[in-house]
Amino acid sequence: MQLQTMLRFRAGWAEAEGPEHAVVLSTRVRLARNLRLPFPSHLGPAGLKRSLDAVFSAAKTAGLKDAAFFKLADLDDADRAFLVERHLASPALAAKPAHRGLVVGERENLTAMVNEEDHLRLAALQSGLRLREAHAAVDRLDDGLSAALDFAFRDDLGFLTACPTNLGTGLRASCLMHLPALTMTGAVARLIEGLTRAGLIARGLYGEGTRVVGDFFQISNATGFGRTEAEILAALERSAAAIVAREKEARAALSTGAARVKLEDEIHRSLGLLCSARLVGFEEAQQHLSRLRLGLALGWKLPADLALVNELTLSTQPAHLDLLAQKELTPLDRDALRAALVRRRLKAS
Amino acid sequence: MQLQTMLRFRAGWAEAEGPEHAVVLSTRVRLARNLRLPFPSHLGPAGLKRSLDAVFSAAKTAGLKDAAFFKLADLDDADRAFLVERHLASPALAAKPAHRGLVVGERENLTAMVNEEDHLRLAALQSGLRLREAHAAVDRLDDGLSAALDFAFRDDLGFLTACPTNLGTGLRASCLMHLPALTMTGAVARLIEGLTRAGLIARGLYGEGTRVVGDFFQISNATGFGRTEAEILAALERSAAAIVAREKEARAALSTGAARVKLEDEIHRSLGLLCSARLVGFEEAQQHLSRLRLGLALGWKLPADLALVNELTLSTQPAHLDLLAQKELTPLDRDALRAALVRRRLKAS
Repeated sequence: MQLQTMLRFRAGWAEAEGPEHAVVLSTRVRLARNLRLPFPSHLGPAGLKRSLDAVFSAAKTAGLKDAAFFKLADLDDADRAFLVERHLASPALAAKPAHRGLVVGERENLTAMVNEEDHLRLAALQSGLRLREAHAAVDRLDDGLSAALDFAFRDDLGFLTACPTNLGTGLRASCLMHLPALTMTGAVARLIEGLTRAGLIARGLYGEGTRVVGDFFQISNATGFGRTEAEILAALERSAAAIVAREKEARAALSTGAARVKLEDEIHRSLGLLCSARLVGFEEAQQHLSRLRLGLALGWKLPADLALVNELTLSTQPAHLDLLAQKELTPLDRDALRAALVRRRLKAS
Repeated sequence: MQLQTMLRFRAGWAEAEGPEHAVVLSTRVRLARNLRLPFPSHLGPAGLKRSLDAVFSAAKTAGLKDAAFFKLADLDDADRAFLVERHLASPALAAKPAHRGLVVGERENLTAMVNEEDHLRLAALQSGLRLREAHAAVDRLDDGLSAALDFAFRDDLGFLTACPTNLGTGLRASCLMHLPALTMTGAVARLIEGLTRAGLIARGLYGEGTRVVGDFFQISNATGFGRTEAEILAALERSAAAIVAREKEARAALSTGAARVKLEDEIHRSLGLLCSARLVGFEEAQQHLSRLRLGLALGWKLPADLALVNELTLSTQPAHLDLLAQKELTPLDRDALRAALVRRRLKAS
């Protein structure tokens, strides 16, 4: 079963090998494209089916022939939840499964969502800060699909999209950044304010409102129009590089002088908890994995590596655990399996 | 130096070998005795010196000839604080060191405080619930000293003491009990109320007011008059045995069925913290050592034994750490040394 296979193998973007991967977990570049049909929200079942069939058939000949093809309606709720946790499907796609599709390329580095807000949402994911490489990958996929599909495009507006913020390039680029030191020093709140004024969007990956779990922030461009793809990517790259520099400064300050013993204490406590606890909740796991990730990023000798922490960050999510157990777990059993999985993986490393 | 020697060797009563030692850490029986002189609070320096010399000289010939003899005034504040933490000297003895003395028998199983509230406070300490054995040991010491010293005694009142609650037998017997399960279930508060009504005193060993650190409670008789020594000991033994039974029931309930995984989680988290943290405060150490002790008492496979936990319960106290470091540590350095000591001892076990 394809999802079980995904569960066993680490996603390519989680390998912790790209530039600045100690701060930038992954880069994603997404293109919104539509067929010359009404947008999905205005299509009935027949129109949605026509769009889904057209995209799947084009994808099989163009760049995604070794990919996994999912019709969301053929999956159960647990499988759909897994794909959302895996950052492959959006919650919107999973919520309305009828005639919705998802194509996942090898090692999860390329994806295509079909009949979400737009007929097509193509995305490339890569480890580290690699905006141009990720853009090149999704651009190649776009070129291949363009040969088989007639995308809605107007010379004055560019690519047409369901939401006007995506008009023009249809491009949304984002960096998933791990900012534990800026979170500890409290500087992250002002940083996010500044980004918003610069036309970027920053939001916590997990957690609601101001409470961010695991110290992950996704930084992306706010709109896809009025600028070229290259300009959008360059602006985001500048901001991401600046944040990387500030996070590294904050990490250096926290790991030298009198502050160091307190950070060592925090990180070793987190490691001790992850290696010992018998019941661990999702948010608690994320928080302690974040500390462990920080220690590893600082080059400290700890029994793990960043790729394993990336893997555990994904695999300790509820639907991942249910898929591992091959049943819907009770919250208590899920906390027990999460604790056992983390202990086992850390001890084996 | 004698204190350094004490620091290196475990006190005999901490060996975790007596009856019911999984609940009763130690038993202490103390006798208050006075010379035919005014009580210490009414003696000037010359009188106190005379009393101190008389007791030391008698002790050297009677039962304590291999003991360590301390004049409190010859020690510095740190050494006196160590003796208090070690449960050998009372805070009152350490607070007014001039012409005060302390005799500590081999392995700390017998002690004599000189010129505290009474001229002599003899005590025997033993591992586990061993009231009669401890009484026999202190009684032998009393007999030996009686041969050399003329104790104040009246046929109608018994032994005379500075505080009327000690009149008669001069006997105070106490059991140091570890009650983590009754603390977790909340039953300990009512238990203590009941003891007070039964003429016993129960108090937390560490912590103030209702906040007890480390789940240790000291149960003792409230007064020494109106009953024979045997009656006092029998009453305390009955109460202690009843508390032991209730604590064991509570432990069984917490370690079976659905509750077990939560207790396993708690205990393994404590172990993880003790094996990992780089900075550990005194109360935090006590609390996690208490959890570890509970796991060991339940017979769980954990990398420690009760004697080691007893040792760490003592050795992680501030003055113990200062003596180990041979200097007065800052609070931060003390937390770091405490963490390092606990990690090292747990890893070596």
